[in-house]
Amino acid sequence: MKRYISKNQKRSDALSKVTGEATYTHDIVVPGMLFAKVLRSPHAHARIRKLDVSKAAALPGVKAVATWENTPRKLFNSTGMMAFLYPGAKPAMDEYIFDQMVRHVGDEVAAVAATSEEIAAEAIRLIEVEYEPLPALLDPLDALEEDAILIHGDIQDNNIASGTHTIRQGDFEKGWAECDVTYEARVKLPIQKQAQLETHAAVAEYRNGELTVWSPTQSVHGTKYILAHIFDMSAGNIRVMNPPYVGGAFGVRVGFGGKAEGIVSCLSMLSGYPVKLVLTREEDFTVSDTRHSGYVDIKLGAKADGRFHAFGMNAYLNTGAYGTHGIEVAACLGNMATSTYRVPNIFFEGASIYTNIVPAGAFRGFGNPQAVFAVETAVDALAKKLDIDPVELRLKNRIRVNDEWPLSYPCSSTALDECIKQAAAKIGWSEKRGRAGQGRFRRGVGLGAGTHFCGYDELAHVSLELETDGSLSVFTGNSEIGTGHITSLQQITAESFGCEIEQVNIKYGDTRGTPYDVGCHSTRSVFAIGNAISMAAGELKEQVLQYAAGAMGCSAEALSIESGRVRGGPEEMDLGQLARDGHIHKTHFSAEGKSKEAVTVTPWEAHAAEVEVDTLTGMVKVLKVVAAHDVGVAINPQLVEGQIEGGVVIGIGYATREEMSINEKGEVYNSSYHTYMLPTFADTPEIEPVIVESYEPRGPYGAKGVGECGLVPTAAAIAAAVEDATGVRFLEIPLTPQRVLDGLQAACVTCQAEKEGGTIDVE
Amino acid sequence: MKRYISKNQKRSDALSKVTGEATYTHDIVVPGMLFAKVLRSPHAHARIRKLDVSKAAALPGVKAVATWENTPRKLFNSTGMMAFLYPGAKPAMDEYIFDQMVRHVGDEVAAVAATSEEIAAEAIRLIEVEYEPLPALLDPLDALEEDAILIHGDIQDNNIASGTHTIRQGDFEKGWAECDVTYEARVKLPIQKQAQLETHAAVAEYRNGELTVWSPTQSVHGTKYILAHIFDMSAGNIRVMNPPYVGGAFGVRVGFGGKAEGIVSCLSMLSGYPVKLVLTREEDFTVSDTRHSGYVDIKLGAKADGRFHAFGMNAYLNTGAYGTHGIEVAACLGNMATSTYRVPNIFFEGASIYTNIVPAGAFRGFGNPQAVFAVETAVDALAKKLDIDPVELRLKNRIRVNDEWPLSYPCSSTALDECIKQAAAKIGWSEKRGRAGQGRFRRGVGLGAGTHFCGYDELAHVSLELETDGSLSVFTGNSEIGTGHITSLQQITAESFGCEIEQVNIKYGDTRGTPYDVGCHSTRSVFAIGNAISMAAGELKEQVLQYAAGAMGCSAEALSIESGRVRGGPEEMDLGQLARDGHIHKTHFSAEGKSKEAVTVTPWEAHAAEVEVDTLTGMVKVLKVVAAHDVGVAINPQLVEGQIEGGVVIGIGYATREEMSINEKGEVYNSSYHTYMLPTFADTPEIEPVIVESYEPRGPYGAKGVGECGLVPTAAAIAAAVEDATGVRFLEIPLTPQRVLDGLQAACVTCQAEKEGGTIDVE
Repeated sequence: MKRYISKNQKRSDALSKVTGEATYTHDIVVPGMLFAKVLRSPHAHARIRKLDVSKAAALPGVKAVATWENTPRKLFNSTGMMAFLYPGAKPAMDEYIFDQMVRHVGDEVAAVAATSEEIAAEAIRLIEVEYEPLPALLDPLDALEEDAILIHGDIQDNNIASGTHTIRQGDFEKGWAECDVTYEARVKLPIQKQAQLETHAAVAEYRNGELTVWSPTQSVHGTKYILAHIFDMSAGNIRVMNPPYVGGAFGVRVGFGGKAEGIVSCLSMLSGYPVKLVLTREEDFTVSDTRHSGYVDIKLGAKADGRFHAFGMNAYLNTGAYGTHGIEVAACLGNMATSTYRVPNIFFEGASIYTNIVPAGAFRGFGNPQAVFAVETAVDALAKKLDIDPVELRLKNRIRVNDEWPLSYPCSSTALDECIKQAAAKIGWSEKRGRAGQGRFRRGVGLGAGTHFCGYDELAHVSLELETDGSLSVFTGNSEIGTGHITSLQQITAESFGCEIEQVNIKYGDTRGTPYDVGCHSTRSVFAIGNAISMAAGELKEQVLQYAAGAMGCSAEALSIESGRVRGGPEEMDLGQLARDGHIHKTHFSAEGKSKEAVTVTPWEAHAAEVEVDTLTGMVKVLKVVAAHDVGVAINPQLVEGQIEGGVVIGIGYATREEMSINEKGEVYNSSYHTYMLPTFADTPEIEPVIVESYEPRGPYGAKGVGECGLVPTAAAIAAAVEDATGVRFLEIPLTPQRVLDGLQAACVTCQAEKEGGTIDVE
Repeated sequence: MKRYISKNQKRSDALSKVTGEATYTHDIVVPGMLFAKVLRSPHAHARIRKLDVSKAAALPGVKAVATWENTPRKLFNSTGMMAFLYPGAKPAMDEYIFDQMVRHVGDEVAAVAATSEEIAAEAIRLIEVEYEPLPALLDPLDALEEDAILIHGDIQDNNIASGTHTIRQGDFEKGWAECDVTYEARVKLPIQKQAQLETHAAVAEYRNGELTVWSPTQSVHGTKYILAHIFDMSAGNIRVMNPPYVGGAFGVRVGFGGKAEGIVSCLSMLSGYPVKLVLTREEDFTVSDTRHSGYVDIKLGAKADGRFHAFGMNAYLNTGAYGTHGIEVAACLGNMATSTYRVPNIFFEGASIYTNIVPAGAFRGFGNPQAVFAVETAVDALAKKLDIDPVELRLKNRIRVNDEWPLSYPCSSTALDECIKQAAAKIGWSEKRGRAGQGRFRRGVGLGAGTHFCGYDELAHVSLELETDGSLSVFTGNSEIGTGHITSLQQITAESFGCEIEQVNIKYGDTRGTPYDVGCHSTRSVFAIGNAISMAAGELKEQVLQYAAGAMGCSAEALSIESGRVRGGPEEMDLGQLARDGHIHKTHFSAEGKSKEAVTVTPWEAHAAEVEVDTLTGMVKVLKVVAAHDVGVAINPQLVEGQIEGGVVIGIGYATREEMSINEKGEVYNSSYHTYMLPTFADTPEIEPVIVESYEPRGPYGAKGVGECGLVPTAAAIAAAVEDATGVRFLEIPLTPQRVLDGLQAACVTCQAEKEGGTIDVE
């Protein structure tokens, strides 16, 4: 019987967050600090001919002006170590903090540190720049043309960011020819923005050769690594920390966030003062990583009995001006596209392609939502051609444990079948599917399925110390980005060690004194850090029990730690008493948890959506989403449900509303919360999270991850439901009213609506 | 051939200290912080009948008033865990932050936090207190009288702080009777003050249930422990850190310093703001631990051939109002008194006794200077009686390796003979001894010898991380209190691991993320932390070489780390490259160094002094001190010499000038740098530090410690030199002009001076 596992433990950060006591980077005040502003390129692509900062530098209150001329000329990749973790990867090293070339609208030209934000802003206006505009590429397919201008011509002779990712299994060409039914299509995917509540910000203090940086990064050690690399500093002289809270992340804060950390570090070094930079919302939208947009070509073929036989895919992702996570996202897209269903013959090729728009990088799902939207479109199409129920077809073809597949890790557990069945059942599949009718408002249901991965190829380390009051301190380089997983880790610690949860203090989000960790991302934290904690807590318990046995003169086997006390011996001992006694007798109880090998496990998910399409206006209203997830054992079911619900909302936005629009000059049109249409509460339907528990033998207490999974198949399920409602399958998202109307009209469905008395403008 | 051992490596903190960039607790500014002032008792002993803070609390700008009525009623010992480490010790738990009883002039009555220091000071004046004065005890012998008032009557029925320490070896009574010559005397020892440059100070911020304290403590983990105890908090929610520099410590900052940490923590909790307290110099003198004054009775007897045969000692230390380190200092006094010379029959009994004066606690030497002053007085007296040269008598009786002695650890190395010989030779013993002449100015030479201990019963832990740039981060809970030993530890790290010293970053003085350590005191840091580092660096090197061997396909035995590169294989590998490659291949290089057992080793020292006594004024001028020290191998000879020189200056002050004077009301008379006569540069003679290297097999690279040793025999040597000059042996220090004149007059030496034409007032 577990005391803290599968329990809805209250979040440990709840009180400080609801009372407003919680500190974020925006709140950081360092005595004597200056305020920074950044001059950004108005051009999508240009060379800076002349840069005159003399008037800005002369403005009273200005303490430093940073440009490409007085800051390090060292190329970096802004993801920290993360981009290097993909086996065999050669990550794009293509960024400077400031460069003489600007490669997208918003690219950094110069930055000023001054005694007030107003003075810094005024100084920015006084900087004189002469640009030589260059032709700009906006579309990845254009960037692949032979005569395309090279965006990083100084370091490479094509526009592909760090190569292509290829997957092969069986013989795709032969298999394709053997299929009885086939489907092929190109889907087009939008730029989605993380739009996290706290804009990018950072504070740096360079003093006595040591650099301290406060930042909302998801990977404090990764950010430390980039800074050490850029400034050629000993990494031990750099400290990166969260304050400790992070106002949302969703992938955009892996490593640098909008280069804020690098900019304030330059300015602090140049000025000798601490420096703070807070990006405006417009800057945040314009310069920090987005989800990769682009094109995915899919080919899926099956035998007459419905068995998938051949799968082909080409992905052309738009990575914008810099490569960041480019190759990884392309690889993840391919891996996720090819690991939900059994297909003997597979070919995938994908790449991230440079253009002159805002860079794309990590965003919750990391290529998987793009993959699943394409795959599930094809699965539904084949179901129609085969006349097999889409649910049946998915159940028939789903991957089983230890199936052969193209991935480097095995499928060690899956309850995808149960996810699909429960999602279908709870949306009312059998009653509602295929019953859209012919009125103005048409309803339909659809389903999408997918997988993800957690713990992928990343090490986890923690250190544990038993304190003299009997509490347990856990040190991890992980961050709390708003998910609540620190509470789940407390639960795992208390369960593993045998203490009360109130006795567990987890210290995170600080490179100082925490062992190396790649950070909070990739659905890894509960799984990977949880495993490291379990290991360390087991060792610590052993130390304590051996010592207590010696102290009490009994056998350690008889003893256990329960509720923070050692029980089973001639007397009960309190953990604090033991720790103090240990110190007096030259024993300190501490342990390290260090993952010995890279373990990757697979969460699974199926979403079913019900929608109502207004055929007159093109408005898609999502009525309900059932989100069934195989997360292994849910350590904290309420937090898992929260992750699922949050994911579904992003999935709904991806499917129906969210799209960063970039005009022909490369300018972002909708760079604010007013114009970028995030779903609000009013747009959020009933969401029914369903936890389908399995037991993952390699996870802590059977747990897998959930973080990214919540949005993976949502858009596919909604598009399928829209098809069920209207008969039209949309190959491009989001399903905005205009796009839906255009599609319905193209399919002559709007004509039908007109017949029934509605009026509609069609261009 | 060692690259970094026995090398004068420049201090890593030198630049920041000479440029003024170095940050101390006095420099800490936390946004929004308040300023604290303390109301202190004007009475040596009183009960507070009434305490009215209403006017103070009503003063605009006042945010909190702390008294015994609104702060924790939990008794503590202000030394942290340290007082608990003495085996079998029951440390005095006798202090509250604020109490209804005040037990010495300066004892805390109340504290105010306000928006400025001026407002806080005004509020202090507005607090109304009605005291019931009680009889006060000032002398420890008075406090032992049967009818003495009890100073801690609520917790114990005598005035002895935490018991007496007894040492027995052989049969003292029998041995004493068997002696051919004997000497007995009572020596009287003064209150010496650490008088460190930075007065006690602390800043606390209590926020979201977490308490952060900046403090100049010598033991961050110890201070954390006391705070957790007092406030009944989970220790993991408390962070104590140095800023990181400490403006001198000398023992006074073990655990709390003048309760500043406790006071600001109370005020931050009460007010909700960060709070800073900086003690004035007068407060620092009046309320923080001093060196124990008191009386030591010694009996030393020898056989006719000069072999010591019986040793008896009773120590009556004045611990003032609180026990702090009382029993430990008494025990150390006894241990040190009985471990320099072979004596078959030993009896020692010592105790620290409560009085109503400023508390005594840890001060460099920790009972040893008191012990050695008494012992060496007796040795010189026996030499005279036996007509044996004092140098010869010491050489004859000195302890040898593995001699039986009353201590719990063995004498594992000693070069005391060489120390004595070199000190004597370099002061010109044979030419100068016994040649004082009869003029007004008389010169003499004297010698004192002693030992100390390092690593005593204390655990050391460090953790090491190889960073991705190839640098090595070392995390330790130790502090840098001005000694420079962090540089020595860098040397040990670089030597042990094989990297460049610039690649070593030692992070210290912060409980966050450092393994438990008892702190920087007890001459332990280079020895104990150095050993832990050697252990961890050896393990880390093994990890790196094994990995490199795998990567290069060669045998690990062939490889070594030199100058930060792995050499000996088919190719050279850079440590940064290896660390990054390791991360990609799921290996992180880190190691813990954890001392497995308590190891204590013995440094040794002999000081020889030459003095000139002005028999007209009584002024003792120290002309030269030769300080010969067996420190094992000196890791950084220049730093060792610095420690010795600093120690000698304190020893000179102890011998000739320094004495806190307390009047009959218990008030400290000389609580400022103007009135407390620290030796200045003008008072400092030529000091010749002599490093007598031995090799301590259990130390890092053969090293022992040196920190406290520099002052241990200085006062004894100076008193011996004064005797050589004047024929008068003074049993009380410091040898102020008045005391010397009185003594000379008593011995009729002044009469002689008068005969020769000088005039002198004698009362």
